[in-house]
Amino acid sequence: MELTVNLDRLKQDILSLAEIGRDSEDRGIYRMGFTDADMEGKRWLQDRMRDADLACSVDGAVNVSATLEGRSEGPRMLVGSHIDTVPCAGALDGTLGVVTGLECLRRLRESGVTPERTIELIAFSDEEGRFGGMFGSQSVCGEINPELLASMSDLSGVRLQDELRRHGYDPMGSLDAARDPESIAAYLELHIEQGPVLDRTKKSIGVVDEITGLFTWAVTLKGEANHAGTTPMDMRNDAFMGLADFAHEIPRVLEENGGPRSRATIGKVQILPGATNTVPGLVEFSLDVRDTSEVLLDELSTAFRKALSAIARRRRLMFEFEQKSYLQPVACDEKIVQRLTEQAQRLGLEHTVMPSGAAHDAQIMGKMVPVGMIFVPSKNGQSHSPAEWTAWSDIEAGANLMLQTLLTI
Amino acid sequence: MELTVNLDRLKQDILSLAEIGRDSEDRGIYRMGFTDADMEGKRWLQDRMRDADLACSVDGAVNVSATLEGRSEGPRMLVGSHIDTVPCAGALDGTLGVVTGLECLRRLRESGVTPERTIELIAFSDEEGRFGGMFGSQSVCGEINPELLASMSDLSGVRLQDELRRHGYDPMGSLDAARDPESIAAYLELHIEQGPVLDRTKKSIGVVDEITGLFTWAVTLKGEANHAGTTPMDMRNDAFMGLADFAHEIPRVLEENGGPRSRATIGKVQILPGATNTVPGLVEFSLDVRDTSEVLLDELSTAFRKALSAIARRRRLMFEFEQKSYLQPVACDEKIVQRLTEQAQRLGLEHTVMPSGAAHDAQIMGKMVPVGMIFVPSKNGQSHSPAEWTAWSDIEAGANLMLQTLLTI
Repeated sequence: MELTVNLDRLKQDILSLAEIGRDSEDRGIYRMGFTDADMEGKRWLQDRMRDADLACSVDGAVNVSATLEGRSEGPRMLVGSHIDTVPCAGALDGTLGVVTGLECLRRLRESGVTPERTIELIAFSDEEGRFGGMFGSQSVCGEINPELLASMSDLSGVRLQDELRRHGYDPMGSLDAARDPESIAAYLELHIEQGPVLDRTKKSIGVVDEITGLFTWAVTLKGEANHAGTTPMDMRNDAFMGLADFAHEIPRVLEENGGPRSRATIGKVQILPGATNTVPGLVEFSLDVRDTSEVLLDELSTAFRKALSAIARRRRLMFEFEQKSYLQPVACDEKIVQRLTEQAQRLGLEHTVMPSGAAHDAQIMGKMVPVGMIFVPSKNGQSHSPAEWTAWSDIEAGANLMLQTLLTI
Repeated sequence: MELTVNLDRLKQDILSLAEIGRDSEDRGIYRMGFTDADMEGKRWLQDRMRDADLACSVDGAVNVSATLEGRSEGPRMLVGSHIDTVPCAGALDGTLGVVTGLECLRRLRESGVTPERTIELIAFSDEEGRFGGMFGSQSVCGEINPELLASMSDLSGVRLQDELRRHGYDPMGSLDAARDPESIAAYLELHIEQGPVLDRTKKSIGVVDEITGLFTWAVTLKGEANHAGTTPMDMRNDAFMGLADFAHEIPRVLEENGGPRSRATIGKVQILPGATNTVPGLVEFSLDVRDTSEVLLDELSTAFRKALSAIARRRRLMFEFEQKSYLQPVACDEKIVQRLTEQAQRLGLEHTVMPSGAAHDAQIMGKMVPVGMIFVPSKNGQSHSPAEWTAWSDIEAGANLMLQTLLTI
């Protein structure tokens, strides 16, 4: 009989870890990177690894690993995700990838299977970016340096260095977490989709082929604040109407310059002075644009800049924008995509090939080594909320797909 | 020789009153209704009235009056405005109407002219609405009642009753301020335009024919907050894009249903959750719509409601709106408009007939008695700011027009 995961044990792990950092007033889970609850989660994870008789280790970036030795000396397979959370989190974002990885290694260990390659389960630190990045996977990829390390602090001004020291770690140790790319054959990550596509199309599995890149802008439109009653419509320099014009152009810009995987979102808006009886003199807003193609991202950037510029001229507004972040799109490894698809097919799982719209540790790892990702459905597309959930049957499907893939890769 | 105002004396009054409540850090004047500075201003005004040998009185709403007896016993002419200010105010909003009225009465008194009708200069209390309305003119028009009086408080929760008592006034006395409409022949008010029309068209005088009415709505559009990366464009219920669609419809709605005096402004917007990487689930915004015609206001209200409703359906959003305020438009008296126009013509003043886009005490008084308004230009249309200003020559022109009109009405 084919090897499968033990769903009851997996359930138990998910529910146990969900108790660590649980808010007493039912506002979800709070286990942000390097908080006490996060460290408690890391200790819980090490206990489970030891229970399963897996070699357990913690690197200088406090990434927690369990290793199952393979037959060969060659580069190892990494499988993992993260267990830190956003505030008011659900039980599955990140956690699901770690505990399914754990269950896969446990099943292999207890069934006496020695894989061809060494398999390492890794739970990366601070994926949710309390300190601004994806500290754990960035450390593994050698993207952290002393200057960057010294500058990392959270929104309350707490420095990462101090948090590391508080938990008994030498901050400079995180520089030792960097791995030789040659030592890693590939990185696999199972994650909840965090979007509505699988749920709406009733698929159990998404095989990720590309992880979207993005740019975010902070845009300012400056007009003139005026009295809403005494200023005729044709004598206004209404900054908000400039924003409305721009928002109205979004579908056109996407249709003309983007593709089916393009997204553009205005998520944050501030209007000044912000009084009912005053024509807005200033608006500040965010623009978040994503695509899996770097070429399309460039074209979208140019098109949005032109649209802004034309609107500012027409409405006699000044405009400025600052690029606040840029993340390069990363393609998953073609062979891994093919292998995951074949296995899903073989296991009779309803599946689809799709992009990842959110950033993951796989995006960092993908710049260094071949990566692959498995998505399982998010009920109603909800995530980063206590409502985040995935049917047990879909979790089982995803975990078995990971197990079979690890066996055959 | 024709009687004219003494500009030097008028200047002196404007500059002296501007010192009362002046912010020590040059952020303009703070003389909100019934603050100590406002009461000091009222005392300063009474001193000037007495200096000019005018009979001075204060009613139960702390409106300050000076009276110049006429030859007849008939209804009196009222001329006035207010001396309370918004925070960070300029020197002219309200004040200019009061001090030009004072100068007119002073010139008549010192030149020995006894007018046909008794002329009363009145400085109304709290026009800027610290306590929510136009307390002074509403009291004179009998619009205040004990229940309303008890409910009036400012944004910090200070009750009008307590402020009145603090300054030694019995709150119930304000009910005695109501006048018999038969006792008033007309109300005239000179005010800065607070808009850009006279300044841009280089006119010294605006003769107001209508004071705009308005309605304001608080609108809520409710969609669903989603991840900006994982939610495809066609699976979103983006509340902000609903607002953008609505803002885009404003010019069409005004063109189809409004007139040249229609204004519509979105001045206040709040977006939730308000994160760069999240599709907005909720927007709350204000809509401020003005016109001088009640019929057009009704038609605009219907058209905006239809537009909102269609957009909500198209974007799968829920929408609600609440009417937060309604002010009826008020027409100035046709004969007064004609008289002011003739006098401006005779005095050789560049003038135009125009609406008032802002609310004034004349809007309250106009529901009870015939009213007329003179506008003088606001430099760059600026008001409610220390930048608020009007050329001395335009102030002189407006004051002389008021004087001649009082002489001949």
